[in-house]
Amino acid sequence: MDSELVFLPPLRRVAICGGTHGNELTGVHVVRERLREEQRKAEEEEDDVVSVACVLTNPRAVQQCRRYTETDLNRCFTRAILSSAVSDRTPYEIVRSQELNSLLGPKGSAQAIDLVCDLHNTTANMGLCVIAYSDSDWFCLHIFKYLQHHMSDVPVRYIHFDLPCREAYSLDSLGKHGFALEIGPQPHGVVRSNIYTFMKTAVELTLEWVRLFNSGTVFEGGSVEVYTMVSNIDYPRERHTHNIMAVIHPKLQDQDFCLLHPNDPMFQTFSGDTLRYKGPEPLYAFFINECAYYEKGIALSLARRRCVAIPTIQMKSGLQHRGEEGTSEED
Amino acid sequence: MDSELVFLPPLRRVAICGGTHGNELTGVHVVRERLREEQRKAEEEEDDVVSVACVLTNPRAVQQCRRYTETDLNRCFTRAILSSAVSDRTPYEIVRSQELNSLLGPKGSAQAIDLVCDLHNTTANMGLCVIAYSDSDWFCLHIFKYLQHHMSDVPVRYIHFDLPCREAYSLDSLGKHGFALEIGPQPHGVVRSNIYTFMKTAVELTLEWVRLFNSGTVFEGGSVEVYTMVSNIDYPRERHTHNIMAVIHPKLQDQDFCLLHPNDPMFQTFSGDTLRYKGPEPLYAFFINECAYYEKGIALSLARRRCVAIPTIQMKSGLQHRGEEGTSEED
Repeated sequence: MDSELVFLPPLRRVAICGGTHGNELTGVHVVRERLREEQRKAEEEEDDVVSVACVLTNPRAVQQCRRYTETDLNRCFTRAILSSAVSDRTPYEIVRSQELNSLLGPKGSAQAIDLVCDLHNTTANMGLCVIAYSDSDWFCLHIFKYLQHHMSDVPVRYIHFDLPCREAYSLDSLGKHGFALEIGPQPHGVVRSNIYTFMKTAVELTLEWVRLFNSGTVFEGGSVEVYTMVSNIDYPRERHTHNIMAVIHPKLQDQDFCLLHPNDPMFQTFSGDTLRYKGPEPLYAFFINECAYYEKGIALSLARRRCVAIPTIQMKSGLQHRGEEGTSEED
Repeated sequence: MDSELVFLPPLRRVAICGGTHGNELTGVHVVRERLREEQRKAEEEEDDVVSVACVLTNPRAVQQCRRYTETDLNRCFTRAILSSAVSDRTPYEIVRSQELNSLLGPKGSAQAIDLVCDLHNTTANMGLCVIAYSDSDWFCLHIFKYLQHHMSDVPVRYIHFDLPCREAYSLDSLGKHGFALEIGPQPHGVVRSNIYTFMKTAVELTLEWVRLFNSGTVFEGGSVEVYTMVSNIDYPRERHTHNIMAVIHPKLQDQDFCLLHPNDPMFQTFSGDTLRYKGPEPLYAFFINECAYYEKGIALSLARRRCVAIPTIQMKSGLQHRGEEGTSEED
């Protein structure tokens, strides 16, 4: 175990975002409740350790209680889309992604907000997941470790989507650092009290961690488990209609993060036959039977799991001499 | 216990309907699978005991995987809507309800199909429910008893919506007899293999019962439990925005068909306060946190439970002298 100490700059500006998918209601209500709390506290003193912006990111989709109105907002934050020309016929979500880039970015710039935390739901039985594009962003990994340590009633895992920054497509990629908090199972269009409470707690713990970090607390390093996305598997489909011909097998349903071995049951056809996993190696299954992914051609995703060593970190203050920075922005 | 024997006419024509709500996918796939089976068996001999029509009732909504395209189809089968004039601006679902009335009805007429069984899903933890407008339709109650007896892996209950025939608004009211089969929990837009298998089994058992009845089998009477709908309760809402201010309390969530007593926890606000049931009497809660009912202003429904005695029934054949008919159409 490496015991190096890494100094990192403070996270002065943080965004808590909900409603990026308008029917994922936990984030919508966590953000609305935080906004109400802000109003109640408006007269009190400002928090000078961290400034928190709460943003309802796709208000039109929230209004309609749909994932999106014209195109999936959370696929609109690539460099290419953010810099594309808009016209009267540009889908609302593309226009909105550029507005959000002005508000929270510009992506990749020095002015970008320090941390974006975007709140999502899944119908899959995934518990709470931190989803990020980096396996070496010490902020994301330390916050994950903090959530995992403090939340005992729900499993907490880290999913790593291994994409270069320019291809990163989701809202959280606007910040210098960012991650999605994904929680399930919950049907889209529904709020369950237990899921709401978990998410509210996770957001409070994230901000607590940021305040502690910005106040000089040293966070000890260690080792964390990371699931790195490998591939997606689609449902078997009819050639012409594209209708699904099978569903997730009852032995796999709700078993997110189980190790799927070659020849394990994966699907069950509507006439009752079992179809098996034919991949060459055992991999961990997640996003099993996520509602919104039927249209994307994803029945489940597969990941490799490994341990990642994270260093001890502390805020780099003006007084400190130069420290080493290990965050992904500098990779 | 009354041991009277009631003679009833055979059920020669039965409709199995799915996709009345386009994102309730169990029925969609049960119907599609039955249609595929019919194609496979097309060459074989016809079933001369019962004729079964399988109907995808709202194909446009199914195509879009939405509950409906313009208005809720399953509220369009009142006498008033079925006899209303249509124009170019009439919502698709109203036009479709009149098409279905031609196909399966006309509602209330001698030509109407004998039995309509309409397949639905709910996000509520309701297990399998037979939902009907009558508590004295011996067909519906006997089929319910048969399902309950033969399905041991899922709770089976009977819900009675106490409305006169002319106000009955749902698809199943087109037939001489009819009921909805409602099953949950399942997120809308998702197919779960266990829920699919339960529904497929329930449909097969329903048709098995009809074949047995039409073949002269005597079905013994007895007593069954019926939940009669009393009232709906909405979420607490903000006056101006109409946004919900609370969700189903964690102690009530998933507890469908529990007896809710005055002062029991019912809602939890987003800031964590408990709101209690303030009704005057204990009632049974169901449709707790159904996704599609947020827009209808229903957080849960309440019912009274009681036992209903049902007579022994047998098919009235040409040879039989006049028997007594106790079905609701003659009430």
